[in-house]
Amino acid sequence: MSVRAGIVVTGTEVLTGRVTDRNGPWVSERLGQLGCEVAHIVCVGDRPDDLADALGFMRSSAVDLIFTTGGLGPTADDLTAEIVGRFAGREMILDEAMERRIAEIVAGFARRMKFDPEALRDGTRKQAMVPEGAIALDPAGTAPGLVVEAGGPVVVVLPGPPRELQAMWAQAVGAPPVAAVLGRADDYEVETMKMFGIPESTLAKTLREIERDIDLGPLEITTCLRRGAELEIDVRNRVSDRTLRDSLFAALRERHERFVYTERGESIDEIVARLLAGSSIGLGESCTGGLLAARLTDPPGASDYFRGGIVAYSNAAKEELLGVPAELIAAHGAVSPEVAAAMARGAMERLGAEVGVGITGIAGPGGGTEEKPVGYVCICVVDAAGNVLARDPKLPGTRDDVRDRSASVAMHMIRRLLIGGDLPL
Amino acid sequence: MSVRAGIVVTGTEVLTGRVTDRNGPWVSERLGQLGCEVAHIVCVGDRPDDLADALGFMRSSAVDLIFTTGGLGPTADDLTAEIVGRFAGREMILDEAMERRIAEIVAGFARRMKFDPEALRDGTRKQAMVPEGAIALDPAGTAPGLVVEAGGPVVVVLPGPPRELQAMWAQAVGAPPVAAVLGRADDYEVETMKMFGIPESTLAKTLREIERDIDLGPLEITTCLRRGAELEIDVRNRVSDRTLRDSLFAALRERHERFVYTERGESIDEIVARLLAGSSIGLGESCTGGLLAARLTDPPGASDYFRGGIVAYSNAAKEELLGVPAELIAAHGAVSPEVAAAMARGAMERLGAEVGVGITGIAGPGGGTEEKPVGYVCICVVDAAGNVLARDPKLPGTRDDVRDRSASVAMHMIRRLLIGGDLPL
Repeated sequence: MSVRAGIVVTGTEVLTGRVTDRNGPWVSERLGQLGCEVAHIVCVGDRPDDLADALGFMRSSAVDLIFTTGGLGPTADDLTAEIVGRFAGREMILDEAMERRIAEIVAGFARRMKFDPEALRDGTRKQAMVPEGAIALDPAGTAPGLVVEAGGPVVVVLPGPPRELQAMWAQAVGAPPVAAVLGRADDYEVETMKMFGIPESTLAKTLREIERDIDLGPLEITTCLRRGAELEIDVRNRVSDRTLRDSLFAALRERHERFVYTERGESIDEIVARLLAGSSIGLGESCTGGLLAARLTDPPGASDYFRGGIVAYSNAAKEELLGVPAELIAAHGAVSPEVAAAMARGAMERLGAEVGVGITGIAGPGGGTEEKPVGYVCICVVDAAGNVLARDPKLPGTRDDVRDRSASVAMHMIRRLLIGGDLPL
Repeated sequence: MSVRAGIVVTGTEVLTGRVTDRNGPWVSERLGQLGCEVAHIVCVGDRPDDLADALGFMRSSAVDLIFTTGGLGPTADDLTAEIVGRFAGREMILDEAMERRIAEIVAGFARRMKFDPEALRDGTRKQAMVPEGAIALDPAGTAPGLVVEAGGPVVVVLPGPPRELQAMWAQAVGAPPVAAVLGRADDYEVETMKMFGIPESTLAKTLREIERDIDLGPLEITTCLRRGAELEIDVRNRVSDRTLRDSLFAALRERHERFVYTERGESIDEIVARLLAGSSIGLGESCTGGLLAARLTDPPGASDYFRGGIVAYSNAAKEELLGVPAELIAAHGAVSPEVAAAMARGAMERLGAEVGVGITGIAGPGGGTEEKPVGYVCICVVDAAGNVLARDPKLPGTRDDVRDRSASVAMHMIRRLLIGGDLPL
């Protein structure tokens, strides 16, 4: 049967648009995997009435679970626990064990930071006030989470810092009142196939064709284009419909094999990191300015394969650090396939790596010409065996888009070179 | 007087957490500037009842304006216009002029993409169905926006693609029913002071002290800690209360001058970019893996001051590309203040820059020791005049946090070196 959930994100800084909320989407995605249908995500500021209104709205739309994020800090405008308590018709009481626990957690930190002891004591006491009968969830920072039965929906109160919220998640969904509701949900699963370089309209047509042979009705299929070229096909299905999903993926693979880069939802960065194990890579970047290096060094253990990267913005840096001949730059321009190739080879050799990458382009907003407009980017990937993969696409969008997409295209080219074969672009 | 607004974001892909909503925050920020108080942002999927519930909730919480985004496309699950029509108690009628207009817009595009003409005609007609008496807003893509008076709140229906929504904004807020509501709002303004390296609790205490001398009542003050060390103090006030805000900022500056880095809401990256004008910088990065280079090359025109960066992950790369003596690494370890200083000087010299930065640290999750735990980072900033600023903080959080915060600390150190003076840390 279907279990419905609502999410209430609190925080004036989110509501006013100054901070991007990371908690609502994160909680929503996990609830989907647990078989919950998320009805609404409501974002409210720090005004108590607006939070109370949002909780009332959730109850009136008949959700089974309400998750709140944020508003559990030590200051006076952190009111979530109190308002949830009132919503559930429960008195606020001091949880003394929790008070001691929080005091211990903040003690060392507070000493180092020279906090005012009195302010600290007030804050700790405030954070240990919980609605009567609530289940406290262990703090990952200083704020405990709460599970509160509210005469209808069960409310799960989580802290605002994403790291603390995520650390508390397993305990929250395992708390008996929450687990009891979730136990009523069907088992759902979500899997994602991703393709690179295929237009969305082609995929839409293919899906219509497949539907003639296979009844896709029981599958929830969502497609989403990211970074201009990565097309994600997200399928949510009952566990009992897994064979059907497999048939869909097989039919898609049959028609578009060379575009598919994962059927397990991996990011291109994860795939490249896996393929690089046992090999080594070095980068020569210009317009991406270190973005490709930052992405390649993001995974733990990147030091096993990442030798280094040279961000060579000036021509002098290209010549001296990457060994690009000055004549080559003079003849073809700093943004040219020839210079990208020389940067890739220079990076490979100077950094002693087995794979080398060169990127040079015009990220804009200035610097474009008719022949080489903003968005024109030359990318080359080489390896020690003499394989070369080169592309010079004109990428659309803003400066940020061009930088980001250039790094993405390079990632897909690295994958192609490592698995052999040519690249659709 | 106060004008309240609500925002309804539609889209299953946003609700399930797979796509980050960019419209809610954008609309909210603009409404704040227009003097509106945004009460809620509600995100719903493509289920008609959930959207209708959200509109009902907005009406019951007594907002004056409702903005919806998304759900205006040509396909069957794009239902926003119809549901808003029902909410306003208005029949849906065909706007024939709009139908011709959309047909013209899509004609060329559809020919190129080989769209099916019949599907296209149906889609165009659907997009031209509007609630009776609604004001149509010119499409920036193919979907017209709408302004619908709904017996109480005025509903503004906007398309989902951010570019189309933003292109339509001026016309939307200028439409007579919307302008009439906005005309009742007071003129508000928002300004942000930012401090680096001061604990949130100290600031809270200071604000209480200041409040003894100054009545801060008319100011809406929000504080927000970012990246572990940047504390933002956001003040929203009536234009007529600007002097009061200036007094608050002056009182804060008086008490915490050396922590304040802006009173105009600038990011540290913008400030550093401004300070670097006419100078030049080169980087030697290890644990940040290119993140600092990516941030420094983010602004347009970065090529004027950014000479280059060397991401030296391996010891060999540190020695060969940055000239760090092998003996120095052997004696102190690759993560040490000594090596960070040598990297900074090496980057400055090899890249021919006036300022050099060296960062080396343990981002984790592995590689930590008792003496040098995960999060231990050594940062050094030098200049050609012989000034040196060095820090080796132990930064909390995940691998991502450590990398991100290391780059931020380095940014603040670059600022300090450029303006002269020491750094609070």
